[in-house]
Amino acid sequence: MQILLTGATGHLGTHITNQAIKQNIENFSIGVRNINKVSDTWKQALEVRELDYFNQESMVTAFKNIDLVIFIPSIIHPSYNRLPEVENLVYAAKIANVNHIMFIGYYADQYNNPFHMSPYFGYAERLLASSGLNYTYVRMAMYMDPLVDYLPELAELGKLIYPVGDGKINYISRHDIAKGIIAILSNQNLLGQRYLLSGHTYSMTELASILSNVAGSKINYDPVSLDTFGKMYDEPKGFGPLLASMYKAASMGLLEQHSSDFEKLTGDQPETFEHFLQQNY
Amino acid sequence: MQILLTGATGHLGTHITNQAIKQNIENFSIGVRNINKVSDTWKQALEVRELDYFNQESMVTAFKNIDLVIFIPSIIHPSYNRLPEVENLVYAAKIANVNHIMFIGYYADQYNNPFHMSPYFGYAERLLASSGLNYTYVRMAMYMDPLVDYLPELAELGKLIYPVGDGKINYISRHDIAKGIIAILSNQNLLGQRYLLSGHTYSMTELASILSNVAGSKINYDPVSLDTFGKMYDEPKGFGPLLASMYKAASMGLLEQHSSDFEKLTGDQPETFEHFLQQNY
Repeated sequence: MQILLTGATGHLGTHITNQAIKQNIENFSIGVRNINKVSDTWKQALEVRELDYFNQESMVTAFKNIDLVIFIPSIIHPSYNRLPEVENLVYAAKIANVNHIMFIGYYADQYNNPFHMSPYFGYAERLLASSGLNYTYVRMAMYMDPLVDYLPELAELGKLIYPVGDGKINYISRHDIAKGIIAILSNQNLLGQRYLLSGHTYSMTELASILSNVAGSKINYDPVSLDTFGKMYDEPKGFGPLLASMYKAASMGLLEQHSSDFEKLTGDQPETFEHFLQQNY
Repeated sequence: MQILLTGATGHLGTHITNQAIKQNIENFSIGVRNINKVSDTWKQALEVRELDYFNQESMVTAFKNIDLVIFIPSIIHPSYNRLPEVENLVYAAKIANVNHIMFIGYYADQYNNPFHMSPYFGYAERLLASSGLNYTYVRMAMYMDPLVDYLPELAELGKLIYPVGDGKINYISRHDIAKGIIAILSNQNLLGQRYLLSGHTYSMTELASILSNVAGSKINYDPVSLDTFGKMYDEPKGFGPLLASMYKAASMGLLEQHSSDFEKLTGDQPETFEHFLQQNY
């Protein structure tokens, strides 16, 4: 089975590619927009193809002789502007006779989810369902990873300010998401299902306590308003309200989602937030 | 409360408008693309505004001083081509300070629904959820109405050929959908919820038996393949596969959805298929 991972130079793509190399996943190649971003190590280890999500023909060419495309969405927003990439994915997969698509989605996608990208994810999964193509749909919980870079700011502030109220959030590391995906690649019988790759669930008070332990100084949960939060992190323009809309979903209880899919796929427990930060901070 | 119904000259819009006039719904106006399609009776009974779903500015103008927009989607397909109308709806509602949107959706919208329009409905509901606007989301079950015109063909054929296998389908009449919507308009406390307006659920064998009774000649359930069905009704081009994809959803059990929302809203039972056909055939 010839595999192509798109978005390989992104954060998650890098984890998946490194693990695929380490685990000796056979016939694993990557598709990237800018080949100059690919390290020599990777170039020696695997085939690199060029593709642009917004150029149908580049996708058709990159998908040639590929059996399984693993598709990681871009970070373009709002939803409407990101849609062409999934339309192009389906179009190119049909033309190039790709047998199977693995789509990496996100768990903030319920019918009432206020996250600004939920329309995109709601659309993408249904486009696959109505495409006639074989597909695997992997929904990810929220990444732990950004907290590593954010923690110094929080420690200085002495506060965790997420506008989440009493809502709880399920977090998983990018490393564990990649591990779940590699587990699926290692056993083709696991293809064709819908998965939720989740880790552990925390209230913001619990998270603040973990952050305090790791930072070695007191960080209290003291939420700001959604509006304030959106204004604080509005760079690039529009990103603040996008981020705030995700925490609004959390405040509605919509990100308190857990499944045992990670354990079933990997045979392991997902990393706890405390362990992850201790290893990476 | 100033109400504007869009798509008023369509099949469902006509039912809603007629019932609104009959029930004396106050401040009820209609938005249409072609004012020439509006009867003199309607022109005398209510205010008519011109709007085009694909022209943002026409929607902003039509929404002026409107508190509640009832939006009936067009019949444009595929999904991607229909999206601008819901983007324009949300855009115009914000600019015109519309307080509330009632969106008339469809029940073939689950994450794994192969109906070719499921991506559109999945997107539309989430766009409303992430818009910050107040909204009511009404999901409709399948219309009984098209069977009235289709029955002579089935009677001649002696067969009901829907490619549904053992799947069951919940059916409701357009008249009952309009009745449910009018019930919401009559009590504003009912706004802001998600509803499923459903009627009665039938296997295709049960439906064939009802059709036989009404037609007075034997009609057996004898399904064709999805592919054959799509080719038989492919006019205009693309419509056959669209229709087939809806029956594929039914074959997967995805259209066997029922709620008691109709009864709760109206205090009545929805019409049975047999009664509906006896009244209208």
